[in-house]
Amino acid sequence: MPQTDIMLQLESQPLEQRMPQATKTAIMVIGGAEDKVHGREILHTFFCRAGSTEARIAVIPSASREPAVLGDRYRTIFQQMGAKEVVVLDIRDRDQSEHPDMKQYIEQCTGVFLTGGDQLRLCGLLADTSLMERLRKRVHLGEISLAGTSAGAAVMGYHMIAGGGSGESPNRSLVDMATGLGMLPEIIVDQHFHNRNRMARLISAIAAYPDRLGIGIDEDTCAMFDRDGVLQVMGKGTVAIVDPGEVDYTNHAAAGANEPLSIYNLRVHYLSHGDRYHFQKRIILPADPQSVKQGEQCPLPQLSSPNQS
Amino acid sequence: MPQTDIMLQLESQPLEQRMPQATKTAIMVIGGAEDKVHGREILHTFFCRAGSTEARIAVIPSASREPAVLGDRYRTIFQQMGAKEVVVLDIRDRDQSEHPDMKQYIEQCTGVFLTGGDQLRLCGLLADTSLMERLRKRVHLGEISLAGTSAGAAVMGYHMIAGGGSGESPNRSLVDMATGLGMLPEIIVDQHFHNRNRMARLISAIAAYPDRLGIGIDEDTCAMFDRDGVLQVMGKGTVAIVDPGEVDYTNHAAAGANEPLSIYNLRVHYLSHGDRYHFQKRIILPADPQSVKQGEQCPLPQLSSPNQS
Repeated sequence: MPQTDIMLQLESQPLEQRMPQATKTAIMVIGGAEDKVHGREILHTFFCRAGSTEARIAVIPSASREPAVLGDRYRTIFQQMGAKEVVVLDIRDRDQSEHPDMKQYIEQCTGVFLTGGDQLRLCGLLADTSLMERLRKRVHLGEISLAGTSAGAAVMGYHMIAGGGSGESPNRSLVDMATGLGMLPEIIVDQHFHNRNRMARLISAIAAYPDRLGIGIDEDTCAMFDRDGVLQVMGKGTVAIVDPGEVDYTNHAAAGANEPLSIYNLRVHYLSHGDRYHFQKRIILPADPQSVKQGEQCPLPQLSSPNQS
Repeated sequence: MPQTDIMLQLESQPLEQRMPQATKTAIMVIGGAEDKVHGREILHTFFCRAGSTEARIAVIPSASREPAVLGDRYRTIFQQMGAKEVVVLDIRDRDQSEHPDMKQYIEQCTGVFLTGGDQLRLCGLLADTSLMERLRKRVHLGEISLAGTSAGAAVMGYHMIAGGGSGESPNRSLVDMATGLGMLPEIIVDQHFHNRNRMARLISAIAAYPDRLGIGIDEDTCAMFDRDGVLQVMGKGTVAIVDPGEVDYTNHAAAGANEPLSIYNLRVHYLSHGDRYHFQKRIILPADPQSVKQGEQCPLPQLSSPNQS
């Protein structure tokens, strides 16, 4: 039972946890297939942003149909990096999210990681639960760093791409939309972006919701959203920004489900490692000279060796 | 022998041919797989723009490794529509393009159609021949309508996408560039565009040549370039316009061959049937209310029945 697993671990921990002061929290939106074996740049950056050796990380594998395996994998990774504690919140039905131990760990933790799987499954289990409301609040207060990969990335917006196709002109039936977890309500995320040729479906989504910002994230690539409104790119691929702020026409409302979509005056940026974009002001910022391909270094000097965790 | 075929047909024709005055010539850039069986909207529009029942059409199947079969197919189609004459210029080596009968037919014809196949093969046979120079001149004088589909579309720009991949972040090695026939030197064409998920390679091409305009054309879709600087879309899919006119940064020069490309501030339009774009001024124009999904009607009232041709 996942609850038992949590309770056993919680008994030995003090209730109140604080993010180390030097740590700058972020929401990390990862395009899937992030490196879990070699440099682990993106996952290591999450580890840093969750408090490094002071990190108490909750892994939520609920998007997956193999949550135990996937939860274990990430637990091992963050333990090897030296996190103080890693707990898998293996929520498999909505009632579980109301369990006091789950809520207690969300109060205690400094980082939450949402794995891949099926974004509809993840939202079905977590959306509108008090656990999720509390998590959202703590993330927005800057008390927790949040990361999601693949399905865990897809859920970040208020409007969510639940599925769709490729190899067609943009059209209304090319994308299935649903409601996400709304951690970054202004964006619509697509992941495995160039790897699975998803520009046409992101365009189809943006034509439906031209008040949002389209974010297409490649595999092993991360758009890291800081609380100051700035997104920074890290990893092997690109983050495509589709900004419909100047769009003055689309036929979306009039077009049949399979008819090709017109949309005029999109502003599109392709960003790669180190590029920075102010997603609230919708402008490119000068690249961060501190940015390195190996991911962020932790603000705390000491890193535990794998044996210590 | 293709030459004999041409000579036999030319003997019975007067040397001087003029485009019917009501006909407005165009360069039609077709994304491949245009309808050849049912409505044939795009091919029928080419037939109209080549002079309708007064049209003398040259089909150049030289991109194809089966030029006789493909040439015959288009000859039959335009004959069935009622063209006055259709000749297949089956150029299989560069010397053939210097043959006087070839040159004579280029002087006489009112429309030239470039089939699909391999764009490098087509350019290898035709680029920098006097035949091609003369064709370019007559097209630019508005004496000939020109159409190209698939490989025949790819060659229209000065810079040509010769090949490439998909399923990757934009990067320099994702696209192979070559020199095209330069009929519309300011554009870089990609065809089978959404069908083969080619946005990333067109972006990679535009990052290399940000002074050009990227045009991604879907199958059974046509960007029809009029001599007044306006492009009009017809057909089943979209034409994506990638305008780098406001791009203020790309890492193209500095990036390694496989590194992801940054490119900031692209302006992108997705256009569908009836949409119009001024490709010289780079602005959207109001859609043409005359535009109909069934393609253009010919300016001449009488259409021959298939039996007459």
